[in-house]
Amino acid sequence: MDASWSRTRGTLMAAEIAEQPRALQRLLDRQLPEINKVAAAIRQAGPRFVLTDARGTSDNAALYFKYLAEINLRLPSGSSSPSTMTTYRAVPDLKDVLWVTISQSGGSPDLIETTTMARAAGALTLAVTNAPRSPLAQVAELNIDIEAGVESAVAATKSYTCQLLALYLLVDALMEGDGSAAFVLPGLAESVLSSAVALQFAPRYRFVDRLVTTGRAFSYPTALEAALKLMETLYLSAHGFSSADLMHGPLAMIDEDRPVIAIVPEGPGGEATQPVLDRLADRSADVIIVGDPHRAVGFAGCIPLPSGVPVELSPILEIMPMQQLAHAMSVARGYDPDAPRGLRKITETL
Amino acid sequence: MDASWSRTRGTLMAAEIAEQPRALQRLLDRQLPEINKVAAAIRQAGPRFVLTDARGTSDNAALYFKYLAEINLRLPSGSSSPSTMTTYRAVPDLKDVLWVTISQSGGSPDLIETTTMARAAGALTLAVTNAPRSPLAQVAELNIDIEAGVESAVAATKSYTCQLLALYLLVDALMEGDGSAAFVLPGLAESVLSSAVALQFAPRYRFVDRLVTTGRAFSYPTALEAALKLMETLYLSAHGFSSADLMHGPLAMIDEDRPVIAIVPEGPGGEATQPVLDRLADRSADVIIVGDPHRAVGFAGCIPLPSGVPVELSPILEIMPMQQLAHAMSVARGYDPDAPRGLRKITETL
Repeated sequence: MDASWSRTRGTLMAAEIAEQPRALQRLLDRQLPEINKVAAAIRQAGPRFVLTDARGTSDNAALYFKYLAEINLRLPSGSSSPSTMTTYRAVPDLKDVLWVTISQSGGSPDLIETTTMARAAGALTLAVTNAPRSPLAQVAELNIDIEAGVESAVAATKSYTCQLLALYLLVDALMEGDGSAAFVLPGLAESVLSSAVALQFAPRYRFVDRLVTTGRAFSYPTALEAALKLMETLYLSAHGFSSADLMHGPLAMIDEDRPVIAIVPEGPGGEATQPVLDRLADRSADVIIVGDPHRAVGFAGCIPLPSGVPVELSPILEIMPMQQLAHAMSVARGYDPDAPRGLRKITETL
Repeated sequence: MDASWSRTRGTLMAAEIAEQPRALQRLLDRQLPEINKVAAAIRQAGPRFVLTDARGTSDNAALYFKYLAEINLRLPSGSSSPSTMTTYRAVPDLKDVLWVTISQSGGSPDLIETTTMARAAGALTLAVTNAPRSPLAQVAELNIDIEAGVESAVAATKSYTCQLLALYLLVDALMEGDGSAAFVLPGLAESVLSSAVALQFAPRYRFVDRLVTTGRAFSYPTALEAALKLMETLYLSAHGFSSADLMHGPLAMIDEDRPVIAIVPEGPGGEATQPVLDRLADRSADVIIVGDPHRAVGFAGCIPLPSGVPVELSPILEIMPMQQLAHAMSVARGYDPDAPRGLRKITETL
């Protein structure tokens, strides 16, 4: 588990963060034809509901897909609860359901089992993995390879953004798009990563032990994934909330000493977050904005993101500075983000 | 907002916690016929998919309903994302969908709007409220009154357990049950509350500022609701995880100084939690078990719950010691749990 003796701490995660522009480009270059085939098969089946099946980082990608399915495809969507099938052996009737299992490794036994059960229960099953020959890819009818390349750091980075892009391209194909809106992403990712603005906030958070992240709709998965990176690599009490849920109770715990990182894209997503930003300002919260600098006026700082990116694609860029920040803070505190204590790359939940 | 000048801090919340046995009894005495009528209407419509619509505490009740629907009714279920409708104006095709909106007050404008839109989009809409003449109850086709009586403390307690019981009774009626399995609850609730075992842990957590709660399947909503109570009344970084999700990353942040409260019922739910308990023991985590004392061996303590309660009903009792603990810790730290800073009883998210 602890590989830190043989190399500098965090080199794997740093390399995988930096590789994202190339990984996204590879996915665009190689997988569009296959994604179009998957889209054609889904269109033919005509599902009426979407259920996702995933854990950890992949579950944050699944939440992104839920918003895409609901907003762009107008398909009601839900997150499956694997324990209902694995613990209680309850298999719902899944006719007319598109079942999307997302897993970097394609090797988690519980997801292989639930996907097998879902297929037997009538769902059209799709596996989105970084391992097209994995057991999960084999039990599902349809497959998408996210082309992230081997991911070695325990904390997932490039596999997350490649999952998001693959899911975006699938939805775009289902809407008869050609994926071209995403062609700018590798270049934009390169510029976001090389600007490395996030790193200037690392010293600021040097002694933080609790932190809240928040975002709404497409940016809510970013808030959750950012919190997960901070938990995994920094052992921080990082708590991600949808901006709407934050108002229902958790807002009470925000004070001057509990920093908030708010993911606020341009457009309606950002507008919908403004009431929460106003409440945070009322409470004198210490807020950093990731995204639209216009929303950062009066707050403690901003990690700006490129303007003019469609809201559906924004999450692919939003998470990158947060990955850089988690990595830098982890190394600064003397941890090894490549091999967090207590974790393995493939998690087996039974 | 701050009513603490006129009375002893926390009296409202304490009274509402203590009232739960009577509130549950009232619901059983008065609402079974109406719940049976609602069940008949749902059976006639024959929905194929369940979507819930709720925020805060009510959303934890909605998650409980999701497990009931999936496990007991074999209906695939999901949690709706209100922002997709209110911000993006995306209304999916909701034919064959049972849309369940849960709200104590029945007054949140966003839930009234989404329920109205869901009904227009073809869903069979059900409002579960503590206010049968509320606007929400009026826009939905079907209604269940949870009979909790006026709830004045901002932190919801009796409305949560009455929501759970009402949802249980609905599912039981849909399965041709007569609700009688729940008749023991008021008596058991009385014995759980009067034992007040939870209070002995309040001094232990006097200086805690971060805490993790966890549970699986039916007990996962308990973990989330317990965390929410601690956030609202104590401003604690209390983070609820499904026991399966805890293994995917967040486990890394658990150490000797971050206590864990694990909700572990008897039966398969408890068995499914055992691997996580083992991992927590490996990490020398400070763990308290709420539920089955047999799972507490070697851990720091146990808040035992009555044996022999069906797993579906267990959450109604599980949350009660956690409400007592949150209340006691809040008062001990000099806060007023009746009126947490920054919160209102009815939250308006637009």
